[in-house]
Formats: sequence, C-alpha cells, structure tokens
Amino acid sequence: MSSRTRRLVVVVGCGRLGGLLASRLSARGVEVVVIDLLEDAFDTLSPAFSGFRVAGDATELAVLRKARTAEASAVIVTTRDDNTNMMVAQVARQVLGVPQAVARVFDPAREAIYHGLDIATVCPTSLPADVAVDRVSAALAATPETRT
Amino acid sequence: MSSRTRRLVVVVGCGRLGGLLASRLSARGVEVVVIDLLEDAFDTLSPAFSGFRVAGDATELAVLRKARTAEASAVIVTTRDDNTNMMVAQVARQVLGVPQAVARVFDPAREAIYHGLDIATVCPTSLPADVAVDRVSAALAATPETRT
Repeated sequence: MSSRTRRLVVVVGCGRLGGLLASRLSARGVEVVVIDLLEDAFDTLSPAFSGFRVAGDATELAVLRKARTAEASAVIVTTRDDNTNMMVAQVARQVLGVPQAVARVFDPAREAIYHGLDIATVCPTSLPADVAVDRVSAALAATPETRT
Repeated sequence: MSSRTRRLVVVVGCGRLGGLLASRLSARGVEVVVIDLLEDAFDTLSPAFSGFRVAGDATELAVLRKARTAEASAVIVTTRDDNTNMMVAQVARQVLGVPQAVARVFDPAREAIYHGLDIATVCPTSLPADVAVDRVSAALAATPETRT
C-alpha cells in the first residue's frame, strides 16, 4: 500500500453532484481527481477546478489506480447507480485501503447495509426529506392542532 | 380564502421523496394530502400512511382545490421537474394563500430565484454535496497537508 502523501480526494461520477463536490473541494485547496465514463461529464466542473480528470470506468481497478486512488484520503462515489456506487466504494476501502469512502445511495432502505461495510452514505432522498420536514415545522407549529 | 382549520400539508409528487415525506408527516400525526399524476405512484407511501390520495395534475387549479390546498398550512412540491415545482409552489402561495411552500429544485443555481418568490427550497444536489464534504473533512484533517 503506498503511503498517503497529501490531501487527495477521488470523486467518481461527474454529474451534477460529482461536479459540484469536486469543484468545492478543489476550491478549498484539496487535490482532486475526478473519474467519469464520459469526457462530456467534465463540463459540470467549475472553470476554476484545478484537479485532474480521468475518463474511464471506475469499476475497473486499472482506472482507479490511474486516478491514484490508493494514495487518496477519501473517495466519494456519486454515479446514478446504487450498485455501482457500493461496488466502487468497497473496492476503494478493501482493496486500495482508502481510509474514508462515501457513496451516494438513492434507496434509503439500503443505507444500513453500506454502514455495515464501513461506507458512509449521502442520500438524495432522505436528506431533502429531513430538510423539507424542518422547513414546514414552523408553519405547522403556527397552526392550531385542531379547530373544527 | 378559507381559514386553515387544522395541521394539513399537501405533498405534490409521490415519487421516492414525496412518498417518504408524506409518510413521515403522516406518522407525526399531520393530516396529509398527496397528489400525483399516476395512481401507481402512491405505492411509495408507507403502509401506515393515513392521509388522502388525489390522482391528477397539480398544475391545474381544480386539482389543487380538490386536495384542499387552500386550507393547508404548507405545500411541498417534489416532482422531477423544476419548472413544474416552481409553478405549483407559486400558485399555492399567491393564488391559494398557503403560508409556507417548499419546492424541490434540482439546479442549485435556481435556488435564489425561488427564495425571491418566498418559496423555500430543498436541493437534492447541494444538500448531499454539503454532507459529503463534511464526511470527508475528518479524513482530510487526519492527512498532513503536504509530505512530499
């Protein structure tokens, strides 16, 4: 296992979420490598993005190695497919020894499985649900419970 | 404008997010009406959901009225289309006088426009990005800034 020599994060999937994440981390001075199947996907990166782009299939170990994943402090996997995200996150953790892996998971019911594999999750369903419930709580509190 | 007689929330769109939201609010004892174009969409509701289902197009005022939107404390609009969400949220606020409207918005660049219209937002792109950055921050902090 090569040693982790700097603050490097590998972002897999460069759609809206991946592009935003890679751009934000890059703006914070973190070294970022972003992987996507399609070159066109890199258009979501901000013009100021100063990291590296790797076009390829992140389910292939050779592609992850090319992106220097074994040196990364963290991997964030953001493709639109839950199975791909779990698989890539697991390979990063178990095969390449990356200390921290975060996977996007669309199905809230699957989050517990990921956590059992020591993979952190972000869920684009349950997070907005939590926030939306918070947002309406004030309006609900201002309404009497019953007045019939 | 009819008076708001109870804690009623109208949820528009019953996909994964809408179904989760409607189920959570219902479980908290809030009266919920959920609207979707397709009857099948209501399959996402939890078996314990005790609210009302309205099949119809929420961009039609008659459908919103049928769902008793004018009596609601809040409306949460969760379809997959940003324009639809903005439109329905605006009609709820401006035409039906609903005190609080929350719209799902996929494009983070549009959130400011909604806020100018007094519509709260939940963004399934920027929320997971915020959380993912938080999740890797600990891993990054544990890595020396440079060691070359």
